[in-house]
Amino acid sequence: MTSDFKVTPWETTGEVDYERLIKDFGVEKITDTLLKKIEKHAGELHYFLRRKIFFAHRDMNWLLEKYEKGEKFFLYTGRGPSGKTHLGHLVPYIFTKWIQDKFDVELYYQLTDDEKFLFKQDMSLEDTNSLAYENAKDFMALGFNPKKTHIIIDSEYSGKLYPQAIKVAKKLTFSTVKSVFGLNDSSNVGQIFFTTIQAVPAFLPSVLKGKNIPCLIPHAIDQDPHFRITRDILPKLGYYKPASIQSVFLPPLEGIAGKMSSSEGQAVYLTDSPNEVRKKIMKYAFSGGKDTVEEHRKKGGNTDIDISYQWLRFFEPDDRKLANIKEKYESGQMLTGEIKQILVDKINKFLEVLKKNREKAEKSVEKCILRD
Amino acid sequence: MTSDFKVTPWETTGEVDYERLIKDFGVEKITDTLLKKIEKHAGELHYFLRRKIFFAHRDMNWLLEKYEKGEKFFLYTGRGPSGKTHLGHLVPYIFTKWIQDKFDVELYYQLTDDEKFLFKQDMSLEDTNSLAYENAKDFMALGFNPKKTHIIIDSEYSGKLYPQAIKVAKKLTFSTVKSVFGLNDSSNVGQIFFTTIQAVPAFLPSVLKGKNIPCLIPHAIDQDPHFRITRDILPKLGYYKPASIQSVFLPPLEGIAGKMSSSEGQAVYLTDSPNEVRKKIMKYAFSGGKDTVEEHRKKGGNTDIDISYQWLRFFEPDDRKLANIKEKYESGQMLTGEIKQILVDKINKFLEVLKKNREKAEKSVEKCILRD
Repeated sequence: MTSDFKVTPWETTGEVDYERLIKDFGVEKITDTLLKKIEKHAGELHYFLRRKIFFAHRDMNWLLEKYEKGEKFFLYTGRGPSGKTHLGHLVPYIFTKWIQDKFDVELYYQLTDDEKFLFKQDMSLEDTNSLAYENAKDFMALGFNPKKTHIIIDSEYSGKLYPQAIKVAKKLTFSTVKSVFGLNDSSNVGQIFFTTIQAVPAFLPSVLKGKNIPCLIPHAIDQDPHFRITRDILPKLGYYKPASIQSVFLPPLEGIAGKMSSSEGQAVYLTDSPNEVRKKIMKYAFSGGKDTVEEHRKKGGNTDIDISYQWLRFFEPDDRKLANIKEKYESGQMLTGEIKQILVDKINKFLEVLKKNREKAEKSVEKCILRD
Repeated sequence: MTSDFKVTPWETTGEVDYERLIKDFGVEKITDTLLKKIEKHAGELHYFLRRKIFFAHRDMNWLLEKYEKGEKFFLYTGRGPSGKTHLGHLVPYIFTKWIQDKFDVELYYQLTDDEKFLFKQDMSLEDTNSLAYENAKDFMALGFNPKKTHIIIDSEYSGKLYPQAIKVAKKLTFSTVKSVFGLNDSSNVGQIFFTTIQAVPAFLPSVLKGKNIPCLIPHAIDQDPHFRITRDILPKLGYYKPASIQSVFLPPLEGIAGKMSSSEGQAVYLTDSPNEVRKKIMKYAFSGGKDTVEEHRKKGGNTDIDISYQWLRFFEPDDRKLANIKEKYESGQMLTGEIKQILVDKINKFLEVLKKNREKAEKSVEKCILRD
């Protein structure tokens, strides 16, 4: 593996070495002991855990101990609304929904329209705010319990967020923000302040309910710098450090380096038609197959770099089916066109359900949005 | 005059050279031509203008031109609630009320409880917020028209302030904030962000009413750095640059260097009893009189450095009475004890009225506070 990669909340490039990220970020690897504990409470293990798609954490043992003692946690996840929802965004959502279902807990979902406005030179707050609504519908289409799900759109909930954010801000110097996020003197003062707004949902339920409630943040590993700061500061304000659990990135269609992103290369969107999905995968999904059918039949494909196989790890929950595909592809029994077709069918079936759910979700979104 | 002085929004020390401040800050001196224009519309000149207590401005000519063409402005002033209201705070208020009355305009009064929380290490947001309420009552006791006065307490109106503040923030780099306010890498990120919140009332009425409305900010000169930034950025957002008009500081009792402040030396508070006022002035008011009665009778006192006389410039509106005092004191006819007694009586009479008004003001404060 090359060490030439970069992971920040705003940019991921190169082939990510997750082992090194564990060391650099200071997160803990998820161990089998921890998995057993989760399984004990959930009754099963989500395939994202079995496959180490969620691979690292902070304070999960503490969180489960609290849970065992009857102290329920709440979930907090979110996204920056700078574009349409693509499959990469769904990875933490799918897992978060599983946790909500298995542990029957409240969930706060933050849409940082302020952040994207501050970091995207060409986007207005009106742009990012209207994307936040679209993103919220996509989110709710995954089937979150609307009675236990609360949506925060930053610019519409700042009456609650800002007075708490300044409490975080008072404990956070520019030096820290500079070193953690790589901001500098040319950064705008909103960018410098922003992480404090992302910290708030990790303790707002404790503020609102007047008691300390444990928090669990499932997120893609690139957001960890925000929560490292949050974890550092919350105890100084009298709140628990939030626990967190980190996923790897869904790789881009073009190959396993980086993460799928709307700004770089091709992404598969929730709004893509079955035909568009097929075209994108057939055309762009990097193949681990051999150059000729003959050679492929003889030597087999490489699933480590084959994007169709890698994506099936995220979207085919059945371990046996996945193992079967792996075996056939690696042995050369299955050709690139065939594994691509399996992925196309899988994604299209998945998106069909989401599209139907999305229509129903429009109503629940309105009910779930927290307003000042 | 010594050049060893410092004026920032958070600290004023040394004997202020206002002529140099005009150059350093880039404000304009108020000319007789401008005074005539103001007089033409107001029907008279406030004694703060006659005496150059309001001595500088930005864009007042433009504002009056707009006014002549039928484009009414609104007023914006405020304060940071870090303590009780003292006489120094009243200087911009007294003038602002005169402008409101003479020009019959709307007024926005901002109480920056967030700022004081962020800049005062030992104050909680609850502390500064409860002071904001007390300060608001003091303000309204001056007799502002409650139908045309709107009070903004930052932490309670952040639902409206923050989404506008980030629009300012996007145009403002840390470099600028660093050089204008002397902040540095050890500053907390709330301090760095804060000036954007202070910018908002200068254009919020334009946002709320959907049309560009001229703004006039009467304030003590130390707040100018905030509004310099505001003026720089607002046109980039499509709003008018706010006009502003600056006052000198009420000097501290102890002598003409610096400004009266709760954190340094003695201050006269609105809540002081007549006896406390008398004691403070008798004991602390720096005297321009001579060492012995004999010498004073012969040579007379120096009104340039005599705090009682200097304060009477702020609190005795009658020019003839003031001239009479000056003459008698400078000629030695009037002794230090006598001029102090005149000031004591003047202040106590003034405070008596304010205290009565304050009781009535409590109700109007509630009505005037803007809430999310």
